[in-house]
Amino acid sequence: MEIAAKILNGDVYAASMLMRAVEDEKQFALEELGLLYSHTGKAFVIGFTGPPGVGKSTLIDSMVGAFRKKEMTVGVVAVDPTSPFTGGAVLGDRVRMQEHAMDRGVFIRSMASRGWRGGLSKSTISMIHILDAMGKDIILVETVGTGQSEVEITKVSDTSVLVLSPDSGDQVQVIKAGILEAADVFAINKADKEGADYVVSRVEFMLGMRKFKPEEWKPEIVLTEAVLKKGADELADVLLRHKEYLKTSGEMDRRRRIRAREELLKNVESFVRDFCYQGFVVEQYMEDLVEGMAQRNIDPHSATLKIIDWLSAHFKQISSH
Amino acid sequence: MEIAAKILNGDVYAASMLMRAVEDEKQFALEELGLLYSHTGKAFVIGFTGPPGVGKSTLIDSMVGAFRKKEMTVGVVAVDPTSPFTGGAVLGDRVRMQEHAMDRGVFIRSMASRGWRGGLSKSTISMIHILDAMGKDIILVETVGTGQSEVEITKVSDTSVLVLSPDSGDQVQVIKAGILEAADVFAINKADKEGADYVVSRVEFMLGMRKFKPEEWKPEIVLTEAVLKKGADELADVLLRHKEYLKTSGEMDRRRRIRAREELLKNVESFVRDFCYQGFVVEQYMEDLVEGMAQRNIDPHSATLKIIDWLSAHFKQISSH
Repeated sequence: MEIAAKILNGDVYAASMLMRAVEDEKQFALEELGLLYSHTGKAFVIGFTGPPGVGKSTLIDSMVGAFRKKEMTVGVVAVDPTSPFTGGAVLGDRVRMQEHAMDRGVFIRSMASRGWRGGLSKSTISMIHILDAMGKDIILVETVGTGQSEVEITKVSDTSVLVLSPDSGDQVQVIKAGILEAADVFAINKADKEGADYVVSRVEFMLGMRKFKPEEWKPEIVLTEAVLKKGADELADVLLRHKEYLKTSGEMDRRRRIRAREELLKNVESFVRDFCYQGFVVEQYMEDLVEGMAQRNIDPHSATLKIIDWLSAHFKQISSH
Repeated sequence: MEIAAKILNGDVYAASMLMRAVEDEKQFALEELGLLYSHTGKAFVIGFTGPPGVGKSTLIDSMVGAFRKKEMTVGVVAVDPTSPFTGGAVLGDRVRMQEHAMDRGVFIRSMASRGWRGGLSKSTISMIHILDAMGKDIILVETVGTGQSEVEITKVSDTSVLVLSPDSGDQVQVIKAGILEAADVFAINKADKEGADYVVSRVEFMLGMRKFKPEEWKPEIVLTEAVLKKGADELADVLLRHKEYLKTSGEMDRRRRIRAREELLKNVESFVRDFCYQGFVVEQYMEDLVEGMAQRNIDPHSATLKIIDWLSAHFKQISSH
């Protein structure tokens, strides 16, 4: 039986194996993913982002519990920023999630995301597809760090949660990065700590400056204390309410179309990049162009056009495989 | 006279204009950059990265002063993480750098980096080329935030400085992200504050775990107090020493070849992506594929191969322009 068929039959080992193959960029993974694709699109995908130290992992852990109480199955994708130099993954507080390890309704995947080639999105999207095809009702995606990946999470999830806490440092720097406009829900974690009120009022102020149409979703703020699992049920309710909003407003379809377009473009870019690397090895053609650039004998734009010529001559035979 | 020729003649307005055109992704900018390229490769490019709030901008400001004392000309590229939703840039503490605004030996460019298409590298590299062609001896590049951009800075600079401070939050989270292995120099800023010793000992401990060959550069740690301009001269000396190391060891050539390769691949990806977007508009072909994906009638891999076919049929005519 093919891996895809096994996964659709509920085989978690087959799912783990395919996830591994996706990370290792095995060719057969693409084909198996292709077979799974028509069985996806059912899960509700929720992205969690926020600065380091706000307690995202612990919050996601308590959200798993909250959704399980509602008898929903849950998948988790945790994206670790990995050293691109050593290739090693750091586990850290992911270990705490072991609590759910024996629950058949939960599947947790921590990603190495080696070298960050293609950024957050490409293999994260594949992991989401696999969990979706496995029939998980809810998929929680965690990204770490501020900056690009925070915004990118809006490209892989239906709903985006920005997690903040009183001790997460200079919040303004985070809010700068554009995630403020992207967040559908704000979780103010460690809400028992001093300064939580300030963070809430700050977010309220920022939201107050934006204009919302009456029919539009106005981002909600939920106070949580993840370690004590406080606020998790309320956050789950808000998230499910947002899901209903997405469906009835047509926003879900709009977001998913944007995601399909992004996924397609990422795949094309990745195909072209892999193809170029192949060219480096097989023909030395690009290596010669790189050398020419380093010697200032050719400029990057001219070199790019030469490669486009080379690509168009070589694409045909490859894409016909 | 062409823009490129004006820039080579020292016209700063022409340089500003070309930088603007690069950000706006104007087609003529590529051609002008092509003309400048053979005049680049002379500047020493130093990247500064580190978590928000450590005082990178202030430190770079004092480094401008330190290099000017040595009668070197300086260019600065400050990369702002901009809201990809509003397209607006936040200036913040960049204003403080006004001190050097009247100095003809200094050119400062704060980048909006709209939408982060292509991440840090693509337009940042172009800005560096322009400053390089302008004849700047030193180019300082600032990136904000933790995560991907911190590692990417090693792809645009000769030397990488990781800026830390006693109050920059959980340093371990930063060090996770792989920049530890990439940094050539550590600047511990706000060195007068409590906890600076701890940060230093932490970095020393981390460095102590790595093996360095005798001929290899062992990252140096410099204490700075940017507001008081303390440590800036020492940091400048360390950086120039690292430059000598890069040159004599052959490491400079190696790094620059890696950068040329990255730039070429980024350009190719960008060309392909632009081309695909054109396809969206002109032929509706890709939009139909996206719709097919959203409806689960075609999987992403099959759609990708269809686009590769389409690209190879259309590339020829475009690249011959």
